[in-house]
Amino acid sequence: MGRIKCIISYDGTGFSGYQIQPNGRTVQEEIEKALTKVHKGDFVRVVASGRTDAGVHAKGQVIHFDTDIEMPEPNWKKALNALLPEDVHVITAEKVNDAFHSRYDVEEKEYRYFVLNAEDDDVFQRHFYWRRSGEIDVEAIQKACTLLEGRHDFSSFCSAKTDLQGDKIRTIYQASCHRDGNMIIFSFKGSGFLYNMVRILVGTLLEIGKGKRPASSIPQVIAAEDRKAAGETAPPQGLFLWNVTYLESDKNSLQNNGS
Amino acid sequence: MGRIKCIISYDGTGFSGYQIQPNGRTVQEEIEKALTKVHKGDFVRVVASGRTDAGVHAKGQVIHFDTDIEMPEPNWKKALNALLPEDVHVITAEKVNDAFHSRYDVEEKEYRYFVLNAEDDDVFQRHFYWRRSGEIDVEAIQKACTLLEGRHDFSSFCSAKTDLQGDKIRTIYQASCHRDGNMIIFSFKGSGFLYNMVRILVGTLLEIGKGKRPASSIPQVIAAEDRKAAGETAPPQGLFLWNVTYLESDKNSLQNNGS
Repeated sequence: MGRIKCIISYDGTGFSGYQIQPNGRTVQEEIEKALTKVHKGDFVRVVASGRTDAGVHAKGQVIHFDTDIEMPEPNWKKALNALLPEDVHVITAEKVNDAFHSRYDVEEKEYRYFVLNAEDDDVFQRHFYWRRSGEIDVEAIQKACTLLEGRHDFSSFCSAKTDLQGDKIRTIYQASCHRDGNMIIFSFKGSGFLYNMVRILVGTLLEIGKGKRPASSIPQVIAAEDRKAAGETAPPQGLFLWNVTYLESDKNSLQNNGS
Repeated sequence: MGRIKCIISYDGTGFSGYQIQPNGRTVQEEIEKALTKVHKGDFVRVVASGRTDAGVHAKGQVIHFDTDIEMPEPNWKKALNALLPEDVHVITAEKVNDAFHSRYDVEEKEYRYFVLNAEDDDVFQRHFYWRRSGEIDVEAIQKACTLLEGRHDFSSFCSAKTDLQGDKIRTIYQASCHRDGNMIIFSFKGSGFLYNMVRILVGTLLEIGKGKRPASSIPQVIAAEDRKAAGETAPPQGLFLWNVTYLESDKNSLQNNGS
């Protein structure tokens, strides 16, 4: 009974993205199929914090749905995981206040991007990184990351293919880059992100890491408000929707009531 | 010209095992197809250190083949990787003495087995572990590992489905188990392994870790020389052929001559 919030993870490799579309397998479709089975054939609509593109993964995507079934929280998780395919997994399921909305109430999203800095591919992780060989100056990238932080018009980092109507002003709370062995890991925390924004950020930052542009050029790239001023779009498979944070999420939780 | 030795890795998920068979995609077939292309249609036979079963992975499988093509070692690696599918990768290619044989000359093989000790599956690594929830006593397993080391008749740890003609005496040089976060990693180094031996060892050791049998029972299980005395067979997807070592491998290498 009421509204259920789930944190889910998925391997984006076998999906044409999160959102339902006429052709291709989608994450939303798989979850709605599973929920419809739980509801004995009654269709259940799922709302997510946002879409992810084909090939993009999620470690902590958040969804919600409404139900007239009463069941303890752990049973929601078990029932859904038993019905979902092996590339989608429910990590937590909790009852929330009806006012909670997985898209409108987002306070912060974190995306991470993984670059394998090696001469060789790794067959076991091949769907989860972008491989770039040769020297990459992580310190220069980290300097550039600092210049991305703050409230800016990010038009230069938005795909021309966007169907966005509103403005392109967003806030990056934190951008960072560090090396862990031969993996270079980017993290971006922000209020929201434009279409392909993280992938264009990574493409541009890697050009800085390769010495093709200076870290100090970031303010000009932002000021240009022109997609052509930024670098290439990094491929989807290195990208993970890592975490979604909600305002007053504790107050929304009903986990100590009901059930 | 001459004999080429390659170290290869593969993700076993999409394969019906290493060895060519009438039905199903195999690693050997993919390598021979790639090599036949390099040789402009002339069939090239590949010999491996041994087979791996369907779903089993290799981090360091070793193969050899003979060729009448003269090309520097780095070009062999490049040419093969360009022709191989993304789930098989050549890590090194080197010219060796014609006397080198990837199967007959094996000195030691190491297999590793990965057990995810967690309540939840991990969608990103799901093809690379066996998940076992609840408490697992790694110290007890480590004690049992020590009792497996040495030269024994391992009939109790050999699948009844084996087509082996000879005896079942093998030497385990080193068996060990350690925990790394929620992953429990088994390593077995030996002269050679029987059919399903590592998977039956892991199945038995996990029963010890779960308190279903004492570590001290290992000598009796070995002495029984009966498959029924050991535990269940662990599934293939946690198993990796990790490394193959050769006697006097340095002497076999021709990498400082020719090319």
